[in-house]
Amino acid sequence: MPFNPEHSAVTVLGLGPMGRALAGAFIDAGLRTTVWNRTAGRDRELTGRGAVGAPSPETAVAASGLTVICVVDYDAVDAILRRDAVTDALKGRTVVNLTADTPDRARKTAAWAAEHGIGYLDGAIMTPATTIGTPASAFIHSGPGELYQEHRPALEALGGTHTHLGEEIGRAAAYDIALLDIFWTTMAGYAHALAVARAEGVTAGELAPFAMGIGAFLPPLFEKFAHDVDSGGFSGEINPITSAASSIAHIVHTSEAHGIEAGVMRTVQDLARRVIDQGHGADGFIRITELLNPR
Amino acid sequence: MPFNPEHSAVTVLGLGPMGRALAGAFIDAGLRTTVWNRTAGRDRELTGRGAVGAPSPETAVAASGLTVICVVDYDAVDAILRRDAVTDALKGRTVVNLTADTPDRARKTAAWAAEHGIGYLDGAIMTPATTIGTPASAFIHSGPGELYQEHRPALEALGGTHTHLGEEIGRAAAYDIALLDIFWTTMAGYAHALAVARAEGVTAGELAPFAMGIGAFLPPLFEKFAHDVDSGGFSGEINPITSAASSIAHIVHTSEAHGIEAGVMRTVQDLARRVIDQGHGADGFIRITELLNPR
Repeated sequence: MPFNPEHSAVTVLGLGPMGRALAGAFIDAGLRTTVWNRTAGRDRELTGRGAVGAPSPETAVAASGLTVICVVDYDAVDAILRRDAVTDALKGRTVVNLTADTPDRARKTAAWAAEHGIGYLDGAIMTPATTIGTPASAFIHSGPGELYQEHRPALEALGGTHTHLGEEIGRAAAYDIALLDIFWTTMAGYAHALAVARAEGVTAGELAPFAMGIGAFLPPLFEKFAHDVDSGGFSGEINPITSAASSIAHIVHTSEAHGIEAGVMRTVQDLARRVIDQGHGADGFIRITELLNPR
Repeated sequence: MPFNPEHSAVTVLGLGPMGRALAGAFIDAGLRTTVWNRTAGRDRELTGRGAVGAPSPETAVAASGLTVICVVDYDAVDAILRRDAVTDALKGRTVVNLTADTPDRARKTAAWAAEHGIGYLDGAIMTPATTIGTPASAFIHSGPGELYQEHRPALEALGGTHTHLGEEIGRAAAYDIALLDIFWTTMAGYAHALAVARAEGVTAGELAPFAMGIGAFLPPLFEKFAHDVDSGGFSGEINPITSAASSIAHIVHTSEAHGIEAGVMRTVQDLARRVIDQGHGADGFIRITELLNPR
């Protein structure tokens, strides 16, 4: 790995499961790694592997040109970084914020950083803590391209795929929010499907192989529907939203007949009905995007 | 393909896109295929390929030992099969109903068939019409095992994978409902994600490759969570539901800040909160299954 010695030191703030995985990957890649966590004692395993445990966030950030922070949300980020001693110590250094929050908060944090002469990149981690340091991990970043290029070697020490999405600082959080939207909605659908299956005497283990088959089916559909949405052509030739609405009604009926609430599916049903009421019943289901956010 | 000549004739009722695909696959496999559709004229392309167009459903079902029906729902099935002339003609023959509806309707149809001396299998088609006749298609079936084995060669002429899920006639519809629940919930999440992404200046085409990455991630998670649900152990060690709730709050906030309704995600948020309020905040998100349908 082509390290610039100037960038071979990194500080990690926040030692939850993700922070510990990040710090561990930096240590394994040979970077001089300084760690700090609000609650003491979380650094033991890391210092045993060669990390330096800092007594305060200001000494932690002063130890490296690059600080990576990954905590619960931006309120926690602010509570750590926006204390005078820490803000002063960060002046002229760079923060890569891998904490998950909203695009709006990323923009506010960038404005604060600019005001204090702090380099700022925002990012998001798309894969679980267990993937960090392996090729399976995936990171997205946004912010000044030059700053990203400067710190890219250190970030790539984390392994996996790193994608710079653009200069606009909120972009990584925007992608993250959209992708989490897909993920948690899908998981809610899966949880509900397993509840309905159980009521029908079908175990989760019996349903799972078929659910996995659907999972394999999704990527090409995501691609096709993305094209529909960008082009504004929502062809429902193969599967019109009226047909989806019929399926959805069967799901709601079966669920509620078993006394299982179907709030998510009832909301989806309402969205489909409104698209049909607008006169778009022959269009595909993905026209719901247009209902939610008309271009 | 080892055809029993007795089973080399099949009737297809319903010539929508799926019915036409089924009939076309039977023709291509060399079965003597009779077709009928409520609205006339839909059989032209099929009769051109060798199908026999029947003038009425009773003559259609009388032409073959096996009738496959695939129409919009079981109301449409009843309107066709439960006329005396058709019911009489079906006596001693077998119906495979590939129409999508609820498990309850499948059971009612099976009871009607038994009452009239009609062999009855219920099934569902898991893949689009374009896959029929190809190895990419997937069918699930339920009902008497002996009857299934008898008609299996004809069904397998449709190509793809055929799975007999058991004797209980509602089982295919139960799997179908659960799988459609996952599918349509996911698609609603995708439509919403694309709406939010657009509001953030991210096109569907830009988001799609990352969404496809999530799609690739789902199957192993479906398998893991199925195990959690069947075993009743909902470990949230890697990702507790409190952490999911934090992500979900960010999604709701970002969506509504752009004036995009977030009804589905608000319902998911409510489910997560109730699991946390029950004292299960350290458990994984999939514990929602237990909230929806306690064992």
